[in-house]
Amino acid sequence: MKPPQHEPLVLALVGATGTVGRTVLEVLDDLEVPVKALRPFASPRSAGTTLSFRDDDLRVEALRDGAFQGCHVAIFCAGAAVAREWAPRARAEGCAVVDDSPAFRGEPDVPLVVAEVNGGAAAGAARGIVANPSSTATALALVLAPLRDAAGLRRVVVSTYHSASGLGQGGVEELEKQARDLLNLREPDPPARFPHRLAFNVIPQVGAFVDGGATDEEAKIVSETRKILGEPGLAIAATAVRVPVFFGHSAAVNVATVRPLGAAGARAALAKAAGVKVVDDPAQRVYPMPMLVGSEDAALVGRLREDPSQENGLALFVSIENTRKGAATNAVQLAQLLARRSA
Amino acid sequence: MKPPQHEPLVLALVGATGTVGRTVLEVLDDLEVPVKALRPFASPRSAGTTLSFRDDDLRVEALRDGAFQGCHVAIFCAGAAVAREWAPRARAEGCAVVDDSPAFRGEPDVPLVVAEVNGGAAAGAARGIVANPSSTATALALVLAPLRDAAGLRRVVVSTYHSASGLGQGGVEELEKQARDLLNLREPDPPARFPHRLAFNVIPQVGAFVDGGATDEEAKIVSETRKILGEPGLAIAATAVRVPVFFGHSAAVNVATVRPLGAAGARAALAKAAGVKVVDDPAQRVYPMPMLVGSEDAALVGRLREDPSQENGLALFVSIENTRKGAATNAVQLAQLLARRSA
Repeated sequence: MKPPQHEPLVLALVGATGTVGRTVLEVLDDLEVPVKALRPFASPRSAGTTLSFRDDDLRVEALRDGAFQGCHVAIFCAGAAVAREWAPRARAEGCAVVDDSPAFRGEPDVPLVVAEVNGGAAAGAARGIVANPSSTATALALVLAPLRDAAGLRRVVVSTYHSASGLGQGGVEELEKQARDLLNLREPDPPARFPHRLAFNVIPQVGAFVDGGATDEEAKIVSETRKILGEPGLAIAATAVRVPVFFGHSAAVNVATVRPLGAAGARAALAKAAGVKVVDDPAQRVYPMPMLVGSEDAALVGRLREDPSQENGLALFVSIENTRKGAATNAVQLAQLLARRSA
Repeated sequence: MKPPQHEPLVLALVGATGTVGRTVLEVLDDLEVPVKALRPFASPRSAGTTLSFRDDDLRVEALRDGAFQGCHVAIFCAGAAVAREWAPRARAEGCAVVDDSPAFRGEPDVPLVVAEVNGGAAAGAARGIVANPSSTATALALVLAPLRDAAGLRRVVVSTYHSASGLGQGGVEELEKQARDLLNLREPDPPARFPHRLAFNVIPQVGAFVDGGATDEEAKIVSETRKILGEPGLAIAATAVRVPVFFGHSAAVNVATVRPLGAAGARAALAKAAGVKVVDDPAQRVYPMPMLVGSEDAALVGRLREDPSQENGLALFVSIENTRKGAATNAVQLAQLLARRSA
């Protein structure tokens, strides 16, 4: 049988009209992924609309029995509730699943995969489901894996700068409206997506609070980074903060390695890593920033320096396009890995 | 002799027309500080303008020989170059000095003081000069001192969320103009105050780069926090990041104490500390944010929780009004301490 990586994919896209869904269409095009047919699905409210993909206008449909018949892979970017209901039905119809929601990320028999870090784990998807990590865990895994491989990880402290688009188009629009109102001396409406006004403010709450005083986003950063890296005991502490940025999540990361590595060693390890781009020339004011992530499919890493306050200490700053490599790009890569696996 | 704290101050204010200078006038009024006479000074460009203070319109003058004659204390908030030139001349004219610039902060015989943390050190101002710390070091010292007193400090990792007003009114105006341009689909002017566009972006550079890949702001956070706390060997690592916020610096802080303290112990220690307000009820979405600092003279602390990834680990989030307690309020407090000392 001809290996599917050379056979164009028949792909279902669930949540096709959302921010990540639309970005999946862009990424398929940008990466020139061979697609034989694409079936866009969305909520009944969005059904009947059309989406452009390459030379076609595709009609968006509501999910129904048999929706996944004949599809190789479905990419789910429609939230946890939809994934829990429909991913098993896709599987029952013979279609592999890449899920961008948190629904399956914690399940031991569902691999959580960043293509460049643990792509091989997609082959072990016993249930035919692979979970796509949260954007920040993806960024962290991409920059920590090369450091781990070079010198081992002793401890990681992360503080984030989450953008509004982590809450989709609604988050982007809320930030824009608030900023516009404030600059025109109008009182903004009470916030709907964010717990407080985000414009010209920062909010040290991303997601909902869970036990121990952390948010679920902070808990995800810890548990997902550990799972992707295959280091269940990794000492990692996270504080997640929303900032008034439209696209692009960032994180300040403090790392202690087991063995000495140094800034030069860290730079060399990161420079040769896939999925990472070293953007690090402080004298020229060059370092990662949300305004640079554009349609980047790599995590940008810079401000690489030694932290003399601890043994084998390093510090770095990372930015990632949360809707591209943080979501859509990795999902497309995982769909390709699953298609190959089913060969 | 009647103690000067009961004798109204004769006060010189250098840099009176800048963001911090104007805030000093507000603070003197808000805190009902007895002032017999106030002499505002500024650059020759601003000389001749008037400033309102209580019931008076004060004429702003340029600095000249004899400017400080008869003044008890001068508050300098005009940058390091002006402080280096004029603070010794103020001293020669018998006037004590509180300097808000970095000019003297590192000098061993100049105390670096946060009133509530090491106010007693003002008494040891051998040269009659007391330095006012940078806003972030003030915030850190305020929250770390009670934890240190309760359980000792083993290690601190800080990531900041610096506001635009750290660069004064020019920084505020640049952010506003950029945001307005972007929302109206105009290309913003090239940045003048910030190294890159700040609106809807974050910039992992505050200040200029120094040796070892850190910025001078990061170096100040480390050295000033150590000096205020009197812990020259404190293990502390900092990353300083500018965010698109007008007023209010924040920081995510990860702490390891020497002895066990726990979240409840930390909360109790902070609740009774002067200069700190515990704002910490996550279930009600209550935690420190720049939009809450208003005209607060305390550092707001919240998101207090244990960090299970290390022994005796704690995490917290702090916000401070960088032009008030981070600058003007502490300067006014230091002026009062110096006046008392000269009794």
